[in-house]
Amino acid sequence: MRLVLLGLFSILLGACGGIPLRGTGDLGLVIERASGHVTLVNTSSRQPYARIGGLGDLSHASVVYSRDARYAFVFGRDGGLTKIDLLEARIVKRVMQSGNAIGGSISQDGRIVVAQNYTPGGIKAFDAETLELLSEVPAEYAPGRFSKVVGLADVPGNKFAYALFDGGEIWVSDFSEPKKPVTKRYPAGLQPYDGLVTPDGRHYLAGLFGEDGVALLDLWQPEKGARKILEKYGRGEEKLPVFKMPHLRGWSVAAGRAWLPAIGRHEVLVADAATWKETGRVAVKGQPVFVMASPDGRQIWVNFAFPDNGWVQVIDTLSGQVVQTLQPGKAVLHMEFTPRGEAVWLSARDDNRVVIHDTKSFRNLGSFAADAPSGIFFTSRAARIGF
Amino acid sequence: MRLVLLGLFSILLGACGGIPLRGTGDLGLVIERASGHVTLVNTSSRQPYARIGGLGDLSHASVVYSRDARYAFVFGRDGGLTKIDLLEARIVKRVMQSGNAIGGSISQDGRIVVAQNYTPGGIKAFDAETLELLSEVPAEYAPGRFSKVVGLADVPGNKFAYALFDGGEIWVSDFSEPKKPVTKRYPAGLQPYDGLVTPDGRHYLAGLFGEDGVALLDLWQPEKGARKILEKYGRGEEKLPVFKMPHLRGWSVAAGRAWLPAIGRHEVLVADAATWKETGRVAVKGQPVFVMASPDGRQIWVNFAFPDNGWVQVIDTLSGQVVQTLQPGKAVLHMEFTPRGEAVWLSARDDNRVVIHDTKSFRNLGSFAADAPSGIFFTSRAARIGF
Repeated sequence: MRLVLLGLFSILLGACGGIPLRGTGDLGLVIERASGHVTLVNTSSRQPYARIGGLGDLSHASVVYSRDARYAFVFGRDGGLTKIDLLEARIVKRVMQSGNAIGGSISQDGRIVVAQNYTPGGIKAFDAETLELLSEVPAEYAPGRFSKVVGLADVPGNKFAYALFDGGEIWVSDFSEPKKPVTKRYPAGLQPYDGLVTPDGRHYLAGLFGEDGVALLDLWQPEKGARKILEKYGRGEEKLPVFKMPHLRGWSVAAGRAWLPAIGRHEVLVADAATWKETGRVAVKGQPVFVMASPDGRQIWVNFAFPDNGWVQVIDTLSGQVVQTLQPGKAVLHMEFTPRGEAVWLSARDDNRVVIHDTKSFRNLGSFAADAPSGIFFTSRAARIGF
Repeated sequence: MRLVLLGLFSILLGACGGIPLRGTGDLGLVIERASGHVTLVNTSSRQPYARIGGLGDLSHASVVYSRDARYAFVFGRDGGLTKIDLLEARIVKRVMQSGNAIGGSISQDGRIVVAQNYTPGGIKAFDAETLELLSEVPAEYAPGRFSKVVGLADVPGNKFAYALFDGGEIWVSDFSEPKKPVTKRYPAGLQPYDGLVTPDGRHYLAGLFGEDGVALLDLWQPEKGARKILEKYGRGEEKLPVFKMPHLRGWSVAAGRAWLPAIGRHEVLVADAATWKETGRVAVKGQPVFVMASPDGRQIWVNFAFPDNGWVQVIDTLSGQVVQTLQPGKAVLHMEFTPRGEAVWLSARDDNRVVIHDTKSFRNLGSFAADAPSGIFFTSRAARIGF
């Protein structure tokens, strides 16, 4: 009797006593790329609270969140798709969805998770609850020819926009009927290598590797087709050595202007976000990788490619000037603002640390150990379009 | 022995077994104004999951959320400030902070909750954890003369902007030191009656009751002072009967334009959000109250004052045309979009129902009973500036 009761107690304690009740609005996840781990973090306490392993190859890994901000979907480089419960701090489910993948997204209604794949090229849609495969769209741009898919982003109406590197096209797939997606195709240019959606979900932009310029598709008027903007954007006349192609997903629209990493140059480009014409350039310390606006659009934080990846600079969008230069740590790979922007978290890979800075005073607010940290993703992404 | 064990079981079950683990990203709260209740809701299941009473006078009540999206702070008309735990579905703490209040806000870092008061006029800052009073700023605009405070909104840097109805000023208080707020004053115009902050937290706008026009303060350059924009905004030359002063908090900025309820007219005004010049008007079914943009800025949803408060119209921001006219229920008082905008929830007070519509197809997605519902507030507000 006593043993049975003790057993019952253990079950009760195990099922609930060990898991604190907590809101999920201030949680997040740090990718530890080298070892296939993720560290779960709290942006209120500015501390990690759990660590989970067994996630495979996490180089270039990205994360989206369920609409209740409880579950993270981690897309690994090796095609692994892992669903993590932030409350129970455990892997709920893991599927190998392809052999070679590069990120994913979640539908506006939160019901469909979509992964984009290099090999075999295409996208696959999964039920966000069960990770059951619902449908796939092979990126067959010509009979028998399949393209790598890049730049996948969710857009309103349970649609996803993405670009075909080999096919030179932007595709928009409508998953209103999750098992019967309907896809439309738009010629874009030579070798789109990444893409992004503006914060309002209206414009899809794809950077071109095979030619200078950026392809722009107005998703409110897709029938007009993609057009070329920023025609000098790229390596330009002089072919410069490029240490790392910048992440387009790092592009920012703030204060009515787009802030873009120049390719191969120590510059951030500024363009009018209505006309998409270049209006200025800001000299910075290295080749920019991520160019990220604070949530209020007042600051642009910039990190750099090797050998300048120990520096971070901050541009004030009102004056257009660099107002701060920091050395947060060695090899700063990624930055993430807290939901309302009072702080920014930075991954210093070669210091094995995540470092936190105040965005007003720029002072260091703390740090914690992480094993070769790269991407940082907070749950506030659950409520936003275009990831 | 058996009784003791049963007792222990009950405690364990009560403390944890009864409270399901859940993310808080898809939760929210509906104000039931007549009876002092709130109904807790889930935007994934589209259903209520709990109901809490004892909140006092909830006419004109408003709500902000803690940064972990677990706690709601409800500001009642009678000066009551109530902290609700959405997970345990209970009141954590309740204080009567004044005799006559009109809403509140929460600081960028989530540590300070501020209430704005009519009587005695001023704002009071509370610790978000304990509701302990930290400091207050009496709205004493001239020796011995205190003003009603309206239009309180949080702005970056742990500041709050608000307007003094009797004092004719906009004040900005910096709570970087929560017990020693520092306040700056800007002349605004005659009788500001409400205010709002643009979604980026940059511009504070106060509508004027005593004269036509709107006072605009650029919070990035406050030293330039407030200036008057939209100089015909108000009751204008012909003094029209106004059934209900529109809520400025309902103002929207979408697709580069501001969409405003005309006062006393069956129109929505459109202004360029860069120059603040009026660029057009859209004829609608009644006197608009809330003019709210969907999260992607593609749609503007409009409800109306009596006798047209059974109607709701939708304006497409690309064409500038009304594209849908709905009758969701009797006396539609408020609307709230789901975080990524796939649905909108509407309070139909005189039907005692909350009604949910799809924003793409406009079809009814469901409804549930609530006692004279008014404001609807989702936890995604926790991650946004300017509430």
